[in-house]
Amino acid sequence: MLRQLATTIAVDTRGRGLVEITRALETWVGASGFATGLLTLFIRHTSASLVIQENAAPEVRGDLDRFLARLVPDGDTIFRHRDEGDDDMPAHVRSALTATQLAVPVADGKLALGTWQGVYLGEHRDHGGSRTLVVTLSGE
Amino acid sequence: MLRQLATTIAVDTRGRGLVEITRALETWVGASGFATGLLTLFIRHTSASLVIQENAAPEVRGDLDRFLARLVPDGDTIFRHRDEGDDDMPAHVRSALTATQLAVPVADGKLALGTWQGVYLGEHRDHGGSRTLVVTLSGE
Amino acid sequence: MLRQLATTIAVDTRGRGLVEITRALETWVGASGFATGLLTLFIRHTSASLVIQENAAPEVRGDLDRFLARLVPDGDTIFRHRDEGDDDMPAHVRSALTATQLAVPVADGKLALGTWQGVYLGEHRDHGGSRTLVVTLSGE
Repeated sequence: MLRQLATTIAVDTRGRGLVEITRALETWVGASGFATGLLTLFIRHTSASLVIQENAAPEVRGDLDRFLARLVPDGDTIFRHRDEGDDDMPAHVRSALTATQLAVPVADGKLALGTWQGVYLGEHRDHGGSRTLVVTLSGE
Repeated sequence: MLRQLATTIAVDTRGRGLVEITRALETWVGASGFATGLLTLFIRHTSASLVIQENAAPEVRGDLDRFLARLVPDGDTIFRHRDEGDDDMPAHVRSALTATQLAVPVADGKLALGTWQGVYLGEHRDHGGSRTLVVTLSGE
Repeated sequence: MLRQLATTIAVDTRGRGLVEITRALETWVGASGFATGLLTLFIRHTSASLVIQENAAPEVRGDLDRFLARLVPDGDTIFRHRDEGDDDMPAHVRSALTATQLAVPVADGKLALGTWQGVYLGEHRDHGGSRTLVVTLSGE
């Protein structure tokens, strides 16, 4: 019979960049006892987001960051909202252009990711901080 | 026992910009009697979309719009599709770069949003119009 | 009673661009016997993605591609990751800016898409290839 389980996962970040969370998710799914289903992640912030990216070549993450830094420059004069500094509004834009929510299928008790996929929390503020995800597993 | 409930929500927009829909969603979730679950929103349009953004500083929405207007200029000569005017194809691009679907967890009968998060319908056409969302709640 | 069903769908692409998959999804949903629910798509790649776009005017897809080609130029010198060629890293960026996962509501045994919406697999590599989706239907 279909069931649903939810929890909160905290991730500490140390500055702008992608932090892999695949293993933390795998551990929680493994402990849930669910064999199949859908794992839905939701990040409770607007200056950090969720991204599935290549997990093999580390320069992919660097390139994505360089691309976003050029696309949404810190301190851009079109931005009026700069309460928390030059990286404040660019963090909100990076968040809007990527994902606040993601769902990953679960099969055989594991995330059914492609071979080269990793799940990442994208920290978009310079200083980082403590980020919270709500994770919901629907399955059996 | 896990249940699923769905409805359609209409949102009238009055021109380009973000319209907050958090309260309308909260009201419907509250009336559903569900305590926990996952609320999935789907917008039935390709020139409007869904965005979770900061709900405190109003200039965040203005900045996001200014950013998108520069990134995807109305009347850009690379666009051939202009059946409905200069803002037609830019609306489709803004839609592709943000989200057509979002899922927000529900806990204690409320949306489990972060303190600074609001749920917005992004209207990307100049004139706005009547927009339709399909909202599905899976939980108990 | 709520049930969940999942399958894998393979899509062959022949080069960069959007491939419509609406009909393949409709066929599978129709065969499932589910009347209502939520269909969640997940693409198991980081150089291809999912997009809901206009299904009427074909130039919308061309315009979206021209826009992305200008935004994320092949062979851009800021990219260090070019193991598989000039289109390698741009494909990852296009994937991050669109969606790895999408959920579409199901009503009366059909996808509850808007009149002008089609579901597309976005192939972001020049040569294309065999792409895999995991499709999960939760409903009854």
